[in-house]
Amino acid sequence: MPSYLLSVTCPDTVGIIHAFSGALLGIGANVLEQEQFSDTGTGLFFARTRFECDESDVAVVRAAVDEQTGRFDASVVLRPEDVRRRALIAVSQYDHCLRDLLYRWQAGELPLDIVGVVSNHDVCRPIADRYGLPFHLLPVTPDTKPEQEARLLDLVRDERVDLLVLARYMQILSDDVCRAMPGRIINIHHSFLPGFKGARPYHQAHARGVKLIGATAHFVTADLDEGPIIEQQVVRVGHAQTADDLAEIGRDVEQLVLSRAVRLWAQDRVFLNRERTVVFSS
Amino acid sequence: MPSYLLSVTCPDTVGIIHAFSGALLGIGANVLEQEQFSDTGTGLFFARTRFECDESDVAVVRAAVDEQTGRFDASVVLRPEDVRRRALIAVSQYDHCLRDLLYRWQAGELPLDIVGVVSNHDVCRPIADRYGLPFHLLPVTPDTKPEQEARLLDLVRDERVDLLVLARYMQILSDDVCRAMPGRIINIHHSFLPGFKGARPYHQAHARGVKLIGATAHFVTADLDEGPIIEQQVVRVGHAQTADDLAEIGRDVEQLVLSRAVRLWAQDRVFLNRERTVVFSS
Amino acid sequence: MPSYLLSVTCPDTVGIIHAFSGALLGIGANVLEQEQFSDTGTGLFFARTRFECDESDVAVVRAAVDEQTGRFDASVVLRPEDVRRRALIAVSQYDHCLRDLLYRWQAGELPLDIVGVVSNHDVCRPIADRYGLPFHLLPVTPDTKPEQEARLLDLVRDERVDLLVLARYMQILSDDVCRAMPGRIINIHHSFLPGFKGARPYHQAHARGVKLIGATAHFVTADLDEGPIIEQQVVRVGHAQTADDLAEIGRDVEQLVLSRAVRLWAQDRVFLNRERTVVFSS
Amino acid sequence: MPSYLLSVTCPDTVGIIHAFSGALLGIGANVLEQEQFSDTGTGLFFARTRFECDESDVAVVRAAVDEQTGRFDASVVLRPEDVRRRALIAVSQYDHCLRDLLYRWQAGELPLDIVGVVSNHDVCRPIADRYGLPFHLLPVTPDTKPEQEARLLDLVRDERVDLLVLARYMQILSDDVCRAMPGRIINIHHSFLPGFKGARPYHQAHARGVKLIGATAHFVTADLDEGPIIEQQVVRVGHAQTADDLAEIGRDVEQLVLSRAVRLWAQDRVFLNRERTVVFSS
Repeated sequence: MPSYLLSVTCPDTVGIIHAFSGALLGIGANVLEQEQFSDTGTGLFFARTRFECDESDVAVVRAAVDEQTGRFDASVVLRPEDVRRRALIAVSQYDHCLRDLLYRWQAGELPLDIVGVVSNHDVCRPIADRYGLPFHLLPVTPDTKPEQEARLLDLVRDERVDLLVLARYMQILSDDVCRAMPGRIINIHHSFLPGFKGARPYHQAHARGVKLIGATAHFVTADLDEGPIIEQQVVRVGHAQTADDLAEIGRDVEQLVLSRAVRLWAQDRVFLNRERTVVFSS
Repeated sequence: MPSYLLSVTCPDTVGIIHAFSGALLGIGANVLEQEQFSDTGTGLFFARTRFECDESDVAVVRAAVDEQTGRFDASVVLRPEDVRRRALIAVSQYDHCLRDLLYRWQAGELPLDIVGVVSNHDVCRPIADRYGLPFHLLPVTPDTKPEQEARLLDLVRDERVDLLVLARYMQILSDDVCRAMPGRIINIHHSFLPGFKGARPYHQAHARGVKLIGATAHFVTADLDEGPIIEQQVVRVGHAQTADDLAEIGRDVEQLVLSRAVRLWAQDRVFLNRERTVVFSS
Repeated sequence: MPSYLLSVTCPDTVGIIHAFSGALLGIGANVLEQEQFSDTGTGLFFARTRFECDESDVAVVRAAVDEQTGRFDASVVLRPEDVRRRALIAVSQYDHCLRDLLYRWQAGELPLDIVGVVSNHDVCRPIADRYGLPFHLLPVTPDTKPEQEARLLDLVRDERVDLLVLARYMQILSDDVCRAMPGRIINIHHSFLPGFKGARPYHQAHARGVKLIGATAHFVTADLDEGPIIEQQVVRVGHAQTADDLAEIGRDVEQLVLSRAVRLWAQDRVFLNRERTVVFSS
Repeated sequence: MPSYLLSVTCPDTVGIIHAFSGALLGIGANVLEQEQFSDTGTGLFFARTRFECDESDVAVVRAAVDEQTGRFDASVVLRPEDVRRRALIAVSQYDHCLRDLLYRWQAGELPLDIVGVVSNHDVCRPIADRYGLPFHLLPVTPDTKPEQEARLLDLVRDERVDLLVLARYMQILSDDVCRAMPGRIINIHHSFLPGFKGARPYHQAHARGVKLIGATAHFVTADLDEGPIIEQQVVRVGHAQTADDLAEIGRDVEQLVLSRAVRLWAQDRVFLNRERTVVFSS
């Protein structure tokens, strides 16, 4: 029996859950998972439902949902669970996050289709090759940045990319790119934001003498290192560790946090809620 | 506007959520929180809903729910949120968990009514006094255990106790008491179960040389240290710590884990699922 | 047999450990614990030694140490372990850190002498009373701040206070006070520094949508929230928690972090290393 | 300047540190790191010293150490830091720990020489190939176990293997192999020992309904899953996770714990202390 993922965001009001559950009942759906959340601050309602039903035509399912719920001014996303999201991974020279994502992807942990690797350097090509993935070399200089980003957006369009993952991609995306893909670019920042924004966060952390270091996966917005946070984690360090030690220890946390964020997104568990996120973690 | 907590457990089938949400819609309720879970292993469905509505008569609300949902063979618990659960705390000589619970209770963190403290020793009486709570001294010897437990059950009945919290109560309850209060007795065990069951777990942990110690809050069943687990936590230790150090370090974890479990229970977030629990943590 | 704590800080060079261990051997001392660290960045050497010996006159022990080690330009602190540090606790209206410190102190977890509680409000007086501690009410307004701080420093001098613990004391100490007690004032800040400095950090954290919140114990310097960090810890939060929830959840972390920092300091385990600390945790 | 690692284990007594530091001072050594611990329970003293000196002949350094310390009946290990330990990795079909170890090794995180991969299955050969490592296929049946283990020990001898890493090697080593390499075989067990010994620990953990799962790296002894523990870590799980989910989540913890244990061992930081370990973690 086909299974579907239904995501709903709308202004909070009475009767939303009943309307959606009625639509699902009407097509004989069996709810497998359901989470919802009402944010009294933003006045928004969020729900995610995973269900199965005999109907294999997504258009029919969609029509049933729309009929019952049209009055809520809702943003509705519906997809068969086996129509997976398409992801492109951007990387520069540090390869640990790329390797980790590809390993997990091959092991079946990341339910999305990785359609390629893009980089401003050639060093990670062998890794892409090993996994049989196209490697797109897009070098960049300050002068060529507009053209390079145009080619990146072409790639996103041509490959029908749903998600761009910045896996230690050391270039700052222009506002235009950020605005073209809201809620669809995930970056890993190698600090526990909002501490240590910007460059060389491990050196900043060492200089400040913190006792825990961390990593942050967040949506990319035009406001650098200020995008909505999806996932964070920390690890304990001590006085004996150098800044280089912190960078080495931090790699594990970066990988874990990024892969968790990508997996949550791939399962439609992450919602934008103004400057914050709603994350229905399993 | 009055708010209610509704808990539902029943065999999983199609249409449950719709039926309950319909009942709530019918009385004009506004859903504030809702969580549900279907366990494919046990075939059971669990849901917790917090809602508000104009209707202040709980019997009317209950009737509306029953009418829509009677066909599901569901175990339904409904209560106005301000009708709080009544808890009795049992303690022996170690007082840290008792102190922590009472402090959090006074600070408003534990939404239940603590109706008294019961102990087989007199040492914690001043603590109960300070909080204006009745202190029930029920000494026990192997010979007097049946009578002592009878008096304990009398107390539970007379004070209409919903929850008995074993806050380092160092007596093993008989099967009769356990069976009289299924899902209504919470114990803190000072190890990360199932490791180190039984007596002196910190000494066992030290002898085994573990690198993390922990605590476990669980429902009490006739099977010692085998009841369904509600909450667990651990903390790192090292080779330099003695067994006594572990006991001291462990106290913090015991307190945290027990108070979390009690709070979750007080908010109707904990469901029995055969030998396991379903916990809708906030 | 009397036991001693010896702390040494000096420019790093060859032969320091041998000189100190020679001094101890010369008086027949038995080393119970020893830790040392050389910071290649600051060029400083740090060591802490706990030892026991038959000699009960600390002056004799001190002379033996000085004779062997005078050439190292070292800052040496030596004390019999039973001559405990004297601490004064400052608090405003939030009482959880004060309660936690006093409870642990009474339970024998904090090896120092708490000589009193000072506050700019009267609300915590009953807590001090319960533990038989003097309560010093020093109200403060912008106008009276210089006099109030003068009285605070008088208290520090009269009571021979080694450590001033700011247990959610909501006043900013002037530069003069900070400079009068370098490395002797510990504050708990209710965020994971350097994130969310300043006022209302839980509200800042909620607005930013972080997935972990934390607390930081640090030495107080004239530079607000920038003093050397002693200890930090975090706890996971989610989208469903309000700013008030974060404040409640955070209290546990604040207590744990502050009590750990105070205990480490009380055991002479914390050293200033320019803007950072060296912490020989057990 | 060459750097050395010196490890000492002996019955605890007065003067050990002074004797060793005197030996080092005598050859003009500069101590970079030093840790020591006296276990009052076992009566044993442990120390690890990292130092540098002009003397490049390890035999000369060794003689200087022995001369000063011969009277302590000490077990002394001395090696130039660049004479790295030699490790052999054993694996069956689960490849995640192998991949993680090799990735970290190539990234410079594991300061040892990996001399090959041994397996009772052929599936991991391509991974070994990719890193240019010899792959030794040693299939095993109940009947051929003695011969297979003899060939394994031959391999250990021929390749001068210091450390055998069981990276999810699903065979139980015979007592003879365990006894041949005390303190030189590290296993990763996929549970938080002593909970869930034996087979299928994630299924056991799911059935018991624990709220945290973990992994344990330990020395292998003839007593299955009872060897001295080197490192442990846990991760939170909930009621919604299946046993298969636990296995997937647990893989991250297994990798982290095993690689940490191997790194600690490779840096001579792990000492056997009867049934426990002393670990001087950096």
